Amino acid sequence: MIVIMRAGASEKEIEGVLAHLRERELTPHISRGVQRTVIGVLGPVGPTGVAGALGGNITPELGPALEGLDGVEQVVEVSKPYKLASREFHPEPTVIRVASPDGDVLVGGREVVMMAGPCTVESGEQLLAAARAAKSGGAKILRGGAYKPSTSPYGFRGLGVAGLELLAQARAETGLATITEVMTPAEVELVCGYADILQIGARNMQNYYLLDEVGRTRKPVMLKRGLSATIEEWLLAAEYILSQGNPNVMLCERGIRTFERMTRNTVDINAVPLVKQLSHLPVIVDPSQGTGKRSLVASVSLAAVAAGADGLLVEIHPHPDAALKDGAQSLQLGQYAELMPRMRAVARAVGRA
Amino acid sequence: MIVIMRAGASEKEIEGVLAHLRERELTPHISRGVQRTVIGVLGPVGPTGVAGALGGNITPELGPALEGLDGVEQVVEVSKPYKLASREFHPEPTVIRVASPDGDVLVGGREVVMMAGPCTVESGEQLLAAARAAKSGGAKILRGGAYKPSTSPYGFRGLGVAGLELLAQARAETGLATITEVMTPAEVELVCGYADILQIGARNMQNYYLLDEVGRTRKPVMLKRGLSATIEEWLLAAEYILSQGNPNVMLCERGIRTFERMTRNTVDINAVPLVKQLSHLPVIVDPSQGTGKRSLVASVSLAAVAAGADGLLVEIHPHPDAALKDGAQSLQLGQYAELMPRMRAVARAVGRA
Amino acid sequence: MIVIMRAGASEKEIEGVLAHLRERELTPHISRGVQRTVIGVLGPVGPTGVAGALGGNITPELGPALEGLDGVEQVVEVSKPYKLASREFHPEPTVIRVASPDGDVLVGGREVVMMAGPCTVESGEQLLAAARAAKSGGAKILRGGAYKPSTSPYGFRGLGVAGLELLAQARAETGLATITEVMTPAEVELVCGYADILQIGARNMQNYYLLDEVGRTRKPVMLKRGLSATIEEWLLAAEYILSQGNPNVMLCERGIRTFERMTRNTVDINAVPLVKQLSHLPVIVDPSQGTGKRSLVASVSLAAVAAGADGLLVEIHPHPDAALKDGAQSLQLGQYAELMPRMRAVARAVGRA
Amino acid sequence: MIVIMRAGASEKEIEGVLAHLRERELTPHISRGVQRTVIGVLGPVGPTGVAGALGGNITPELGPALEGLDGVEQVVEVSKPYKLASREFHPEPTVIRVASPDGDVLVGGREVVMMAGPCTVESGEQLLAAARAAKSGGAKILRGGAYKPSTSPYGFRGLGVAGLELLAQARAETGLATITEVMTPAEVELVCGYADILQIGARNMQNYYLLDEVGRTRKPVMLKRGLSATIEEWLLAAEYILSQGNPNVMLCERGIRTFERMTRNTVDINAVPLVKQLSHLPVIVDPSQGTGKRSLVASVSLAAVAAGADGLLVEIHPHPDAALKDGAQSLQLGQYAELMPRMRAVARAVGRA
Repeated sequence: MIVIMRAGASEKEIEGVLAHLRERELTPHISRGVQRTVIGVLGPVGPTGVAGALGGNITPELGPALEGLDGVEQVVEVSKPYKLASREFHPEPTVIRVASPDGDVLVGGREVVMMAGPCTVESGEQLLAAARAAKSGGAKILRGGAYKPSTSPYGFRGLGVAGLELLAQARAETGLATITEVMTPAEVELVCGYADILQIGARNMQNYYLLDEVGRTRKPVMLKRGLSATIEEWLLAAEYILSQGNPNVMLCERGIRTFERMTRNTVDINAVPLVKQLSHLPVIVDPSQGTGKRSLVASVSLAAVAAGADGLLVEIHPHPDAALKDGAQSLQLGQYAELMPRMRAVARAVGRA
Repeated sequence: MIVIMRAGASEKEIEGVLAHLRERELTPHISRGVQRTVIGVLGPVGPTGVAGALGGNITPELGPALEGLDGVEQVVEVSKPYKLASREFHPEPTVIRVASPDGDVLVGGREVVMMAGPCTVESGEQLLAAARAAKSGGAKILRGGAYKPSTSPYGFRGLGVAGLELLAQARAETGLATITEVMTPAEVELVCGYADILQIGARNMQNYYLLDEVGRTRKPVMLKRGLSATIEEWLLAAEYILSQGNPNVMLCERGIRTFERMTRNTVDINAVPLVKQLSHLPVIVDPSQGTGKRSLVASVSLAAVAAGADGLLVEIHPHPDAALKDGAQSLQLGQYAELMPRMRAVARAVGRA
Repeated sequence: MIVIMRAGASEKEIEGVLAHLRERELTPHISRGVQRTVIGVLGPVGPTGVAGALGGNITPELGPALEGLDGVEQVVEVSKPYKLASREFHPEPTVIRVASPDGDVLVGGREVVMMAGPCTVESGEQLLAAARAAKSGGAKILRGGAYKPSTSPYGFRGLGVAGLELLAQARAETGLATITEVMTPAEVELVCGYADILQIGARNMQNYYLLDEVGRTRKPVMLKRGLSATIEEWLLAAEYILSQGNPNVMLCERGIRTFERMTRNTVDINAVPLVKQLSHLPVIVDPSQGTGKRSLVASVSLAAVAAGADGLLVEIHPHPDAALKDGAQSLQLGQYAELMPRMRAVARAVGRA
Repeated sequence: MIVIMRAGASEKEIEGVLAHLRERELTPHISRGVQRTVIGVLGPVGPTGVAGALGGNITPELGPALEGLDGVEQVVEVSKPYKLASREFHPEPTVIRVASPDGDVLVGGREVVMMAGPCTVESGEQLLAAARAAKSGGAKILRGGAYKPSTSPYGFRGLGVAGLELLAQARAETGLATITEVMTPAEVELVCGYADILQIGARNMQNYYLLDEVGRTRKPVMLKRGLSATIEEWLLAAEYILSQGNPNVMLCERGIRTFERMTRNTVDINAVPLVKQLSHLPVIVDPSQGTGKRSLVASVSLAAVAAGADGLLVEIHPHPDAALKDGAQSLQLGQYAELMPRMRAVARAVGRA
């Protein structure tokens, strides 16, 4: 950590910073320039623990605390605040095994994995039609929401357990693995009983009790990036899950919120290669949420694969016009069938399967 | 609701929209321009209810569904999606009674209410020093976090129940009402036993289970605006709480995330008068989170009062340099004491007390 | 255009809107719902012309003016504000012929066109080395800045005319067409004498005098999207050039500014297919500016081609470490040589050449 | 400047950085931590000058160049990139004298200066009515656009010279000083002949030729913040003008672009005290552009004064309903008259006149 003092900071102010560091058993290294003094801090990056027990570690609170001291202009973190999620700590890419009736599906390996299905489970018929189409197009994983976040309290919030049951039936019938959202700690155990991958939605990316809870399971978890989460915050949210002992975390870029409102969100395509450089975790892209427009889903899917995504999460629906939720961004089954060979061609062109 | 068709949309596409509306027992009004056809939809705005039961209402899902139909260019909502939170429905400003040992504190009335205290409860000594200073400066409500969201899993997450106990002691000792954050549905009952106002943090603004749960209590709730929540989404989150039967909701503008990173957040000062026009709920401003810099807190506090805020939420700390969390944005007790008369002068200048 | 009145707007307020429209010789269509009145406006979309001459047209100022009338809640534009740039007006894709010593290069046709070269012309040697590598990799167009925008007044602002001369020499030597930035109306004629494509930089996207001036030439123009320009504003800037009579406009997505600062900008990959649906103009992507990081350029280049871009603008440099400007985002010549066959593979996979 | 190497950067990579610095006659200071090596760079911050002449200075291009070297993770600038605009260099606040027929108006002193008038000069009658109201309310400066940026090429672009003439007449008649926008270098001299303050609009904040040109005059310049300009970029734009020798620069916060679209822009109220800490230049706030809604202008004006603004730029119009441009954000003359005493009360409350 590097503390940059204001130009003209007084000796007393500099001494204040040094004292703050020494109290925490940290070793400051001072270097005085013509205009400014800069103080380097060495020490292992470590947890805060219980109140007061800060000794000897560069804790997450140290930087903000130093920024508040008199005479300090800026504090620069030198070490990354996440560890288990980082490539530095874990150079090999993580490959996650997802159980399915047809055998394990590997996420993060050579194959680009397609996850397809309706936004929301509406009925057995709807789900099964989508599941069959998903499978015949080449998907390995069936998506479908039983618990749905709704911006309005008057909106549809999912079928709940009945939806989970339908998902389990479609799984048995088609052999596909399943992914579904879990929204609150109290439901994690229940959802674990039905689904092969737990999805943490964008609005819950910083719901820390929920992250802790899914971290205590060993189920694969797909962690969606928050609407306005920086890449660092996203990796820190993954670190929550990893630090509870669950190594099976995949990340999902689903578009961020920007000033552009002609699309629902803005897919941050830069994040795909960047996160793969910073982290060993697999990266999935959701072009349905990411664009909000059916007419853009195919192009952005192909772009995601070309950029190096390990998988796609795509909404498909047998009758998007009659969908209860998000029909405007769901592909018709025929459009999905048409996309799949194009996706395979791009995957091959970038050396994936 | 108004459906704008693409220029050159076919008769079949127009008919598709009309059929979609008629199936839902809604009455379309068609108007054909030179270039485009526009379809108006009448009907009460209403809830979705259980799957399938969509008849006769303009539900939250209708607009997105229509946008996905062939030939549709854009859908414009004419009615506001929130009702209980709106001025249209409830023209008189809401004044919330907050219980305190010294008698009720009114939020949303003529008086601008100061809520002050440390970001985080660290010890009885720290809290009591802050509470006494808060009171002697004129604050009516003591803030202090017992459960703290931490971006990093290695950070300090609060003293928990012990922190709530300290808060209750400081309340008894000073006569101040208290506000503290609640982070998960399972802890709502516990926190209700200690605090006078429940705070929903920015990261939890769309934690719908939590909103439901605090909506089932009758405790005053302060709902912070999410980092990238639009004003409409914020009011819809308030609507969650109101629609569960709890009318005691106050809103807190605490800065939004923008491209500018020299400050921690950007206080959306426009939102203060705008939300007061759209809604009858009281609006509080948090200049500490909103700026992240102690040196900006006083100026932005004064601005918030001048803009019409009903209260301020300010972090103060007896020793900000030694604060466990957010010391850089906490006022020293002396700075707070200095600010209070200036705040009163501005309040008087805009006709408040 | 549709004017949505506030719930409970008075008859006098409604009459005020009607009068405003009639004064401008526009025909209002009124429709009264249970809660709100909605007023439709018919009439051709047209220019404002000289002050006062507003009659009979829906002008660009009409919407904002109506929004200011008493009782008006919202105004919705039904027609697109741009015409010459739109697909509706011009359904066939525009293919632009760029002159080069080796014959015409077509931008917007079946072939994905590579434009490569240094950010800034530094010397004849540097430019020629880059130009030869560009050509041997398959680029058709050489980029190189002679006039450079610099955020700081103390930074390097380009070699000026000497840079243009070097560009012309490299053109003659290699047979490549050239593209270079023009920053002010007074230099348009000069730059036209040297370059085959005029580049309008992101900071100048709304420099209307400059747009007018390049619109008066018939040179191909590449219009970069402004840092925070919406897609609609971008197309309106193109409309400036087109409406002066120059049909040779290509658009360049170069990343927008968002809250994420780990990359220099955020490439809006959604914009590539969306702009191609809204407009007939070719779309180029600049992954160098768009990411700011050399290590991301290849992946984002491939993504852009997969998403349907008509060309790429990539910075390459014989010695990026010694580059005067933007070395961190410039590919080394070897990296560029390696990228080109991968790009061709992806182009083929999506049916392009 | 501090260069932070990647964890595990090789000796060769470290040596590469050192060599890069030594070539530029800069002195590196190396410090090796357990995980990372950090290299400090001393040397005066200075201009780039002509290509190649980089020796001994930390130039604006150095940081980006270092970031591109192998093994470098991050580069941190220690010194501020602007000098003439900074408080460090110029601790006393700048007070600008603006000539007016009634005597000099001081901007940046104890008095909060009101600049009021129509967005656009439309006619002598309109301008004079606004000017008289402005003056009688207490404004010292009359605003009015003769050259107007229009997002659409079909919109109204101002009366040009005729507008300047009307402005000069209103000045003579009322004794008010005048401010008007200048949009291109070629018109600077012309506009100087008519106006007392030159306004650089938000879209032109990085039009460097224009900044240079107004920098060569000695006229007071009001520099609006760009739509998505960081505070640092804004101050660097001011530095362009200052470094040409014109010390009379005032800054104008006019709202930034964010995800919130219910208001036209988001006034960055934090920027008011922050810029006054970083810089000695006066800060003006434009609540009309900053909100886009007449109903918010008064509250945000009061907030700006409370936050420490040195002046306000407010749009007023005798008949906003008939305004050619931006009527929706213009105050009626009566509303303005009502606002002024409230503004004076707030100014007094914060110790201003």
